[in-house]
Amino acid sequence: METLKIIKVGGNIIDNEAALQKFLSQFSTVKGLKILVHGGGKLATQMSKEMNVPVNMIDGRRITDAPTLDIITMVYAGKINKNIVAKLQANNCNAIGFTGADGNTILSVKRPVKKLDYGFVGDVKKVNTKVLDVLLENKVTPVFCAITHDKNGQLLNTNADTIASELAIGLSKHYKTELIYCFEKNGVLLSIDDEDSVIDYMDTGTYETLKIRNTFADGMLPKLENCYNALHEGVSKVIIGNPTVISNTNQKFTTLFL
Amino acid sequence: METLKIIKVGGNIIDNEAALQKFLSQFSTVKGLKILVHGGGKLATQMSKEMNVPVNMIDGRRITDAPTLDIITMVYAGKINKNIVAKLQANNCNAIGFTGADGNTILSVKRPVKKLDYGFVGDVKKVNTKVLDVLLENKVTPVFCAITHDKNGQLLNTNADTIASELAIGLSKHYKTELIYCFEKNGVLLSIDDEDSVIDYMDTGTYETLKIRNTFADGMLPKLENCYNALHEGVSKVIIGNPTVISNTNQKFTTLFL
Repeated sequence: METLKIIKVGGNIIDNEAALQKFLSQFSTVKGLKILVHGGGKLATQMSKEMNVPVNMIDGRRITDAPTLDIITMVYAGKINKNIVAKLQANNCNAIGFTGADGNTILSVKRPVKKLDYGFVGDVKKVNTKVLDVLLENKVTPVFCAITHDKNGQLLNTNADTIASELAIGLSKHYKTELIYCFEKNGVLLSIDDEDSVIDYMDTGTYETLKIRNTFADGMLPKLENCYNALHEGVSKVIIGNPTVISNTNQKFTTLFL
Repeated sequence: METLKIIKVGGNIIDNEAALQKFLSQFSTVKGLKILVHGGGKLATQMSKEMNVPVNMIDGRRITDAPTLDIITMVYAGKINKNIVAKLQANNCNAIGFTGADGNTILSVKRPVKKLDYGFVGDVKKVNTKVLDVLLENKVTPVFCAITHDKNGQLLNTNADTIASELAIGLSKHYKTELIYCFEKNGVLLSIDDEDSVIDYMDTGTYETLKIRNTFADGMLPKLENCYNALHEGVSKVIIGNPTVISNTNQKFTTLFL
């Protein structure tokens, strides 16, 4: 099977024009089949404030009412996604922007209301690979933002880490998929303030032990849950590191395995 | 050669939720290969006002400075395009949203500054059909908004009528292309206030005569120029009418020929 890299770039890189530019030029040089998934950064929050739409975040998740969904769709699928696509084209990487609605690639259900009503937030149910297969075959690079749909006409806000891992799982039937999370840190850190404390290799046992010891920062825990889920579901390799990880030039990053 | 319909839907239909819904369900039933091109409607102007970005229109064309380009990208490629795609998916039409940057499909140059500086406005130079061919072959329907790029990382605001006709011309090498403009009127009218005064058939001679007599409304003239240009450049058929024209249920519409 051919290798397919699903590379997710975090919001802090999206927010920094120079860092994003550098990341995209590195991404363009990655050989072989690849998909980019990007987060939203702080732009949506900024737009909400400019438009007097209240921002409601709970545990780092955005409560998505109808006006917030509009803003997210404009910022993620419009401004960020299309500027990334244009910049990739300038780097001779033939990209196409995607939400999960495009090509019916990612089908979600609106998260059921329990204690909390997250609003128009989607939990991924299915990845349809047909359109992606065809594009990858033709050397086109899909670029996903963090939006899916319910196939009934409703767009849904969906966590970008989850989109990356669900794509990697869904496509693992046809490709040897590698999932690479790029963010502003060097990898999974033993101590959050020490960039040198990168855990090089982490298996499930080590993960469980460190989790019990509360080693991981709040944002890292759901990311790692996603990663191990992906490994269990057929993804061949998961890496977490700073953007240099995609050009094989960095020394430190974290490789996860079962 | 297989027939490919390029259907452009105007801004007044985009602005009307019920009319858009109806149009999209009709569009979904159109048999065979098809591409949708949509205008922007009044949403971009509304957003500009909400965000205190001055709106500057000259002869119906939007002067596009950097903040206006951001708004256009958010509204056209984000909110309008992705909601259309999601609604088409609900109608079992497998659509993918496009700007000209996606798949490097429409290459433009920033309009040179002469008397007027239009800002980030693009004049179409080239349509690359490769990605579109592959998708059409796989029964996927591209949905274009009115944005192109310059291949140097710059997005450009581009007239939606022009995008439709350039796509029809570019794709006429591989398909028998039909260009269909849907808007709120029944067709090209002899008298703008009389919906029954539809010109059924209009050849170049009739067009030139009526043009000299100032028959056409301001907005109609560039549309017609586009249409005749398309016919000269290989498009097999151009139709102008209200949305029912795509489901062959209406009585009145205008067919243009050379």
